[in-house]
Amino acid sequence: MDPLYLQIAERLARLIRAGTLKRGERLPSVRELAASQAVSQSTAVQAYRWLEDARLIEARPRSGYFVSSRPPRLPEPEASRPESRSRAVRLDQLGQQVLQLSTRDDIISFGAACPGPELFDQERVRRALARAVLRHRDLLCRYPSGPGMEAARRAVARHALGLGCELHADDIVMTNSCMEAISLCLKSVTRPGDVVALESPCYYGFLEILQSLHLRALEIPTHPRHGISLDALQLALETQPVKAVLVVPTLSNPLGASMPVPERRRLAQLVAQHDVALIEDVLYNELSEQEDRRRAVKAFDSSGHVMICGSFSKTVAPGLRLGWVEAGRWGQVLRQTKAVQSGGQTAVLELALADLLNQAGNGAALRQLRATVATRVDAARGLISASFPKGTRVTDPAGGYILWVELPAQLDSVALYEACLAENICIAPGLMFSASPRFRHCIRLGVGGHWGPQHPRALRRIGALAQQLLDAAPLAA
Amino acid sequence: MDPLYLQIAERLARLIRAGTLKRGERLPSVRELAASQAVSQSTAVQAYRWLEDARLIEARPRSGYFVSSRPPRLPEPEASRPESRSRAVRLDQLGQQVLQLSTRDDIISFGAACPGPELFDQERVRRALARAVLRHRDLLCRYPSGPGMEAARRAVARHALGLGCELHADDIVMTNSCMEAISLCLKSVTRPGDVVALESPCYYGFLEILQSLHLRALEIPTHPRHGISLDALQLALETQPVKAVLVVPTLSNPLGASMPVPERRRLAQLVAQHDVALIEDVLYNELSEQEDRRRAVKAFDSSGHVMICGSFSKTVAPGLRLGWVEAGRWGQVLRQTKAVQSGGQTAVLELALADLLNQAGNGAALRQLRATVATRVDAARGLISASFPKGTRVTDPAGGYILWVELPAQLDSVALYEACLAENICIAPGLMFSASPRFRHCIRLGVGGHWGPQHPRALRRIGALAQQLLDAAPLAA
Repeated sequence: MDPLYLQIAERLARLIRAGTLKRGERLPSVRELAASQAVSQSTAVQAYRWLEDARLIEARPRSGYFVSSRPPRLPEPEASRPESRSRAVRLDQLGQQVLQLSTRDDIISFGAACPGPELFDQERVRRALARAVLRHRDLLCRYPSGPGMEAARRAVARHALGLGCELHADDIVMTNSCMEAISLCLKSVTRPGDVVALESPCYYGFLEILQSLHLRALEIPTHPRHGISLDALQLALETQPVKAVLVVPTLSNPLGASMPVPERRRLAQLVAQHDVALIEDVLYNELSEQEDRRRAVKAFDSSGHVMICGSFSKTVAPGLRLGWVEAGRWGQVLRQTKAVQSGGQTAVLELALADLLNQAGNGAALRQLRATVATRVDAARGLISASFPKGTRVTDPAGGYILWVELPAQLDSVALYEACLAENICIAPGLMFSASPRFRHCIRLGVGGHWGPQHPRALRRIGALAQQLLDAAPLAA
Repeated sequence: MDPLYLQIAERLARLIRAGTLKRGERLPSVRELAASQAVSQSTAVQAYRWLEDARLIEARPRSGYFVSSRPPRLPEPEASRPESRSRAVRLDQLGQQVLQLSTRDDIISFGAACPGPELFDQERVRRALARAVLRHRDLLCRYPSGPGMEAARRAVARHALGLGCELHADDIVMTNSCMEAISLCLKSVTRPGDVVALESPCYYGFLEILQSLHLRALEIPTHPRHGISLDALQLALETQPVKAVLVVPTLSNPLGASMPVPERRRLAQLVAQHDVALIEDVLYNELSEQEDRRRAVKAFDSSGHVMICGSFSKTVAPGLRLGWVEAGRWGQVLRQTKAVQSGGQTAVLELALADLLNQAGNGAALRQLRATVATRVDAARGLISASFPKGTRVTDPAGGYILWVELPAQLDSVALYEACLAENICIAPGLMFSASPRFRHCIRLGVGGHWGPQHPRALRRIGALAQQLLDAAPLAA
């Protein structure tokens, strides 16, 4: 449970974000707020301080608190310009270290892209699983079927309607994670040495999979707001032996980009024309605040070239460990690959998931989740704007809880990572997100995990440490 | 629940097997049996018929029923002699088809090596999981830790003491199956194109993994009772670029062989001397009736060259989907491979497993399981002896529920498979169990699944169909 002041602050932040409290509007006095919320005045002060830190409100001497008249605005990073040849992936230990540190209780972590348990209705999830266990005890002693329980596959097919896709339950395969789904897709359409095109920067885990499957990464220029450049991708498909394209069209990681709808249609056509597989990761689609961009590229796929992969770890319950895939024209080979790699999942988990997806409360839980992380992202962007070095750029994603921060070019984010770690703060250095030595002056900040009063403090501290490193660094040539 | 007559028959079979009822001894009359078991006389007759079918008892005219004076004895197959070069693995659709058919309710299946749900105490498993869900609801909304819950890893370390291994919980990684564990081991120590030595015939799933990882199979001569030939393996290690050795030292699949203890020690030394990884699958160790052969090769490993892989799908609950691995000197790289491939398992499942392993009842459940499948194997061997063509050989495994049947050389087991399938009976043709075109005259029969009165009938029918095929076949040259 969050502390009281934080609950109040987040409620106010949501009202500001929704426009219910308007820019420049006067807020209740500390005394009024304390009375209306039935809390002490010191709690009310704490709540206002938090909102001030987040640059959502401002104190005017002798006049009280007002909604900030101008939201903090830092420029966004520009589109990336990766090299135009493919590379074998050779990751060092850094990425694994960051992810391991992110799970430690004594670390204030912005290193992972995982949502914290307090963002979910734990009791709702527990009840669904307890019901499944009680009703289907025999399933605990049976080998699960390959593609997963029919009830779960039907619930996923209904869920996919919300992504604009009409899928058949028979064509859906349940997996133990979105990552497993993507790994199965890659295994189904590539052999060692093949080239896979993907966003730049891209999710660290994708590079790990490519390395483990001995695939080459071809990074494509990507815009922080509109996603992968289709012109560049088209050129790559025309000139290089690309076997598969792996993208996150909605709320990509780490950029938070979401492709415009016409681009989605064009992407589906492009892969069909070139007869290559598009592996589409829809992990974050339901976290998008732009309803039209929850629509998957798969919705425009008439030739079966799109393999769509999803999971419920970001939206229903991270600990259930369930994902899914519909592999289009590669359905049969994917089912076989799945049978070889890991068999099926625990059936009662799939039944609990089906139950949760079918419950009316699921939509409300999602709206709540989107609102909660949106206020955090606002707060984090405000703090970055206030305390990071001059010249910093930051993304402005329409949903999710991941920020990509571009620091002045001469900053070494690995040095920043180490300086932060010395103070028990974890960030993800930018070079984790490319197979080539790029993005060394960038960092990724995930704000979906645990969130307490120490987190805004730590964000300010990261800015101060970055400034110190810049002050000590030689000027760029 | 098994029918009443079958429960009585199996109880008597156990008494015969244990020697409590001696060879040649007179059994109670039908009337006496019915009275002592409080069942109808027709049920008692059915029980005796079943035991007769299994050749465990015999009816003597006007004298009643007697324990068979001589148990059925067919010769065992001879040691295999595979080719001495390695091969890329190219499996056809047959194996997947057999395994898919084996799960269908309308098929009488001997095709899979999976135990049926009725062999386990479903209520015990359900209670353990319900407890874990109730006590640890927060874990459902948390990403699981990489190597698995500490409680589970500690329970596995205790379990490994029963295999003669002193393992540290910190070195154990939980997986979603034994197959995942083996796949992780192979990924950790090989690259595409590398050579892996394994038993011949070997488990079909191993060949699938090798194919999926683009590894070459080098099959080593294997004795149906004593397992892989260490002389042949040594020669292979001296002359060929073997990167890993993959074996099932106890109750190998499909042969049911168990290596003598001195051979286990020698195998551990051999891989250490040649500095290659031994991937040891201990899936079936607890099903062995020979207590000394439950001891793992890992127990003799002082150099960390043995990667031991296990699971609880054959001994605790097939539907929990939990396995484990201790990867010796490759522990660090395996943990990373696991993080990339699938993250962790659902935490409450691991806690339920820990609970089940720690319960005093676990040992009793295992004894019961061993006894139940032993009587089935006896019955199946009896039926094979009685109804399969002259010249048939069959293994005599000291535990488990898998029989390897060698039919006369001119028999085509794929034709037999098809003839059986036309009558809704599923068997596994022998060529599934090699990367080279071998064992075409062999079949594997799994008798661990559902077991009813139709199964003995179906076994006799397989024998009759084999005879028909032989009668129609041209004589071997």
